[in-house]
Amino acid sequence: MTEKAVPDIVVGRLPVYLRILNYLIDEGRYITSSQELGDRLGISSAQIRKDLSHFGEFGKQGTGYDVMFLRDQLQKILHVDRRWSVVLVGAGDLGHALAHYRRFNDAGFDVVGVFDSDPQKIGQQFGKYMIQDVSTMGEVIQEHKVKMGIIAVPPAAATEVAKEMIKLGVVSILNYAPVTIMVPLGVRVQYIDPVVHLQHMAYYHNEEAL
Amino acid sequence: MTEKAVPDIVVGRLPVYLRILNYLIDEGRYITSSQELGDRLGISSAQIRKDLSHFGEFGKQGTGYDVMFLRDQLQKILHVDRRWSVVLVGAGDLGHALAHYRRFNDAGFDVVGVFDSDPQKIGQQFGKYMIQDVSTMGEVIQEHKVKMGIIAVPPAAATEVAKEMIKLGVVSILNYAPVTIMVPLGVRVQYIDPVVHLQHMAYYHNEEAL
Repeated sequence: MTEKAVPDIVVGRLPVYLRILNYLIDEGRYITSSQELGDRLGISSAQIRKDLSHFGEFGKQGTGYDVMFLRDQLQKILHVDRRWSVVLVGAGDLGHALAHYRRFNDAGFDVVGVFDSDPQKIGQQFGKYMIQDVSTMGEVIQEHKVKMGIIAVPPAAATEVAKEMIKLGVVSILNYAPVTIMVPLGVRVQYIDPVVHLQHMAYYHNEEAL
Repeated sequence: MTEKAVPDIVVGRLPVYLRILNYLIDEGRYITSSQELGDRLGISSAQIRKDLSHFGEFGKQGTGYDVMFLRDQLQKILHVDRRWSVVLVGAGDLGHALAHYRRFNDAGFDVVGVFDSDPQKIGQQFGKYMIQDVSTMGEVIQEHKVKMGIIAVPPAAATEVAKEMIKLGVVSILNYAPVTIMVPLGVRVQYIDPVVHLQHMAYYHNEEAL
């Protein structure tokens, strides 16, 4: 096991493999193959075998993968065989959807606090959360040993929020604000921007056909 | 210009360049450099120059890029120098946030209809939209010449919705449902799954430090 050497792009596919394994378990399946996984994910079975080979031997030649075993192993590799506490900053529409996104909970991610800097929002009920003052985020982070944060604030505020999170010990940030955030070594940011995806696909539209 | 030959990963970075150029314009800037863009995006200036070189010559040696010119060119290249009509299927929490996401509008993407299959939801007001029966989606798609769709339904329904969209002429799908969708040649799907991002980052957490 040389986890350190695994390319990030391979790591990024593991959650997708984990997702399909969970569906197979829901379907009552016990055994699968790289062929079936590949077919259901639209990638080659060779790619899947190669990706998994970075982490060990999970299947026997000719008998395929034990679905639950592989699921459990991937959960361990990804460190998601445990629960993670997450703080969420930004109590807007998007923040509301994220705070109550059931799949976070199903996957072991618990939003332990929702924060905003708007005095009009602080103290308000927000679905099952109460919106807290972002300046008090440190207490919650400390109490729950939070290492992960989600940013759903307007672009102008995102860098400041990220800095504060990092100062308080957060090392993984999921950033919905449409800005690039510079972070120190050891801190990771992943970005979700639906506009980027739509524009990316627009490139391939044949203008003549429109 | 050999657009066909441009690697998809390069195309995927153009919207991010476009985003930063728009910020520079908002800041009142007229000239920028690959160095500045790189610094603000956390990538190398060489990468930016190489990416842009696929599409032509946008800057002069030593004088940098004209911000507005480069912005306009990127918009043309991405086919986002026009407005796009988009249908949205799935009138849940996430669908609500997406239907009212201001940046879609700012970027030229107009959600022209919100659809669901739940009889309890159909006909209900949904912010500024009225939820329509997904079985009537064809009329809206035809009327607005819709080529893009957003899926925000539960995983079990996503494949069916995608099939229907594609049958009706949609060729670009932004899929928020946590399932992989198989599509015919000529149709593109991009995925947004925040759980995948959190799990991806969890991999890098040092367990000893927890």
